[in-house]
Amino acid sequence: MTPPSPLASRLGFIAPFHVMSLLEQARQLEQQGHDVIHMEIGEPDFGTPPAIIQAGMAALQAGHTGYSPALGLPALREAIAEDYARRFGVQVPARRIVITAGASGALLLALAALVSPGKEVLLSDPAYPCNRHFVHLLEGRAVNLPVGPDSQYQLTADHLAQHWSADTVAALVATPSNPTGTLLSAEALAALNTAALARGGRLIVDEIYQGLVYDQAAHTALAQSDQLFVINSFSKYFQMTGWRLGWLVVPEAYLNAVNRLAQNIFIAASTPAQHAALAAFQPDTLSLLEQRRLELKSRRDALLPMLQQLGFRINSQPQGAFYVYADSSTLAGDCEALSARLLQQAHVAITPGIDFGQHRAREHVRFAYTVPVPRLEQMAERLRKVL
Amino acid sequence: MTPPSPLASRLGFIAPFHVMSLLEQARQLEQQGHDVIHMEIGEPDFGTPPAIIQAGMAALQAGHTGYSPALGLPALREAIAEDYARRFGVQVPARRIVITAGASGALLLALAALVSPGKEVLLSDPAYPCNRHFVHLLEGRAVNLPVGPDSQYQLTADHLAQHWSADTVAALVATPSNPTGTLLSAEALAALNTAALARGGRLIVDEIYQGLVYDQAAHTALAQSDQLFVINSFSKYFQMTGWRLGWLVVPEAYLNAVNRLAQNIFIAASTPAQHAALAAFQPDTLSLLEQRRLELKSRRDALLPMLQQLGFRINSQPQGAFYVYADSSTLAGDCEALSARLLQQAHVAITPGIDFGQHRAREHVRFAYTVPVPRLEQMAERLRKVL
Repeated sequence: MTPPSPLASRLGFIAPFHVMSLLEQARQLEQQGHDVIHMEIGEPDFGTPPAIIQAGMAALQAGHTGYSPALGLPALREAIAEDYARRFGVQVPARRIVITAGASGALLLALAALVSPGKEVLLSDPAYPCNRHFVHLLEGRAVNLPVGPDSQYQLTADHLAQHWSADTVAALVATPSNPTGTLLSAEALAALNTAALARGGRLIVDEIYQGLVYDQAAHTALAQSDQLFVINSFSKYFQMTGWRLGWLVVPEAYLNAVNRLAQNIFIAASTPAQHAALAAFQPDTLSLLEQRRLELKSRRDALLPMLQQLGFRINSQPQGAFYVYADSSTLAGDCEALSARLLQQAHVAITPGIDFGQHRAREHVRFAYTVPVPRLEQMAERLRKVL
Repeated sequence: MTPPSPLASRLGFIAPFHVMSLLEQARQLEQQGHDVIHMEIGEPDFGTPPAIIQAGMAALQAGHTGYSPALGLPALREAIAEDYARRFGVQVPARRIVITAGASGALLLALAALVSPGKEVLLSDPAYPCNRHFVHLLEGRAVNLPVGPDSQYQLTADHLAQHWSADTVAALVATPSNPTGTLLSAEALAALNTAALARGGRLIVDEIYQGLVYDQAAHTALAQSDQLFVINSFSKYFQMTGWRLGWLVVPEAYLNAVNRLAQNIFIAASTPAQHAALAAFQPDTLSLLEQRRLELKSRRDALLPMLQQLGFRINSQPQGAFYVYADSSTLAGDCEALSARLLQQAHVAITPGIDFGQHRAREHVRFAYTVPVPRLEQMAERLRKVL
């Protein structure tokens, strides 16, 4: 008889996304001929801008299909550095910008450089679920701190002061945040960074939704300090999800470590995708992206009152990304049952709060406004009938 | 004053590639106008086959730029399953085939599913260096077992019997092997698999260079067992290095764990690359790849006597991949000094053995025959003058 199979202990901490089973049910409904309104996936519905597509095709035609350098194409690292200067007035040397396979690759590099086994990373609850799973992948301990409307669902310097232990090495925040769409101000970021550095740790700032903000100018945490890690991506603002391209901005002291990790873990990011991304910063692409940002703003402005009329409560105004984190507690006791019911009865797919943490998670659902306003109206109409 | 920065302990085990500094020197020589013969990088010089390029361009034109499913495009998983049936007569259900960001992604998934902190993975020394670094990334212990010509530089079931401890969870072998180009027979693979399973562990087989064999028919370890992990890639045989696309064949018992890990660690592999790879199995592409395989065989057959005449010793006939692991001990005491000298004096770039391990590593160098025969002759002519 064969002995039992070894299974890594980390699997005990790595949960599947609940939304995946919902997606499967949605697919079945569609196969039965039903029209499902998809508001569950964190993916813009616009498609990659044409100039980026064209640049990708030209790169393939020109045979740019070999390995690129481990830290990325020099021209793309320079282009990102120039974009920081142009859009945000911040000088970030290209050597500190490392191109990765999506923001996932950037997060893995940053945490692999910081987290030894048993060390702690402070995170908000709710938060993007992969963050805590990456910490567990690397045998660290994710410390999920409950946050609510009083701090716009964000960690504060006070949280760090209260929960930083001898084992803590980093705090991870996101602005704009997934699932809540809330922001951190320049002052809040500066205070978080100071709090982390003062305790011998580092702040990691997820800026994946950078540029998708609606009530103020976009900014970057890099304006506050060159000692923090910044995670970014071509997926959301530049709408290149399926290309899998992101970047990590690395503090000088970690360049050697990140270089060694990148060489070994990834070899390199996709070469055709990097060539395509060079077109992301062209004026015509940037102006198209601005139009799309305004379209997302209109959707948000349309969606919020619809949800409130349906009985959802919005406890903190979402100001960025393309998510509304809605309090469903007066409508249903359990977000999972509610999401399942809305899918089956109204053919509207949304994400249950339990994908984002534990703190009051069963009382919330996330709506992604990745469909046009007429479709949002249709969604509201359908929900009205079943709620 | 700021306290010192946290640095993950794993960095103590993750070395940079020595060949990188060599590459930098080669670049400088080229900037000075010198002609460098590159035999240091594990990348075929043919470029991606035209039909794959065309399929990639068509996918971009059609707007296939969104996320694909976490485990890969169903059509590509099916195509790989069909290829196993057609080329090797082995039935591998598509559900066990997981598409990854290069073989790097596949290795990360397999080890993340198997290795808890402190657990051991048996590897050969010499071996592909990233393998042991991935084990350390996940806080396992890489046990590097010296191998030599007596076992064609491969682990054997005897190695497993001798070195398997209570903490061992897996053994990792590669066929064809990097850096030695040697193969494991069907019988050797079966014995290794039985030895691992009998001890409650798993065999991981790196088949990244599958198909690039010169003196016998290609085979797969999957013909021996459905209980082992197989790592594969579109990089080498299909010559898609820069696209970053690979796959992992997963034993049934690990599908759930690998699914959860893939969702969280990668989200998905590149969508355009997956669409492009669908053209990899077309008859015209396969016949082009066969021509290229024969070209590599000619190069190997030309290179081996050249190296022997120069005074290198080939202790085990390389039968696959595109590498010769040459014993340089009668020519120089140290491979690093030798590589540097050959680059500076002959403008020939090769990889020092110390990139592949410690066992007699300073007495070896690796030649990649990724240049045509006339260029190999030029290389030999240049080395003759300086050796």
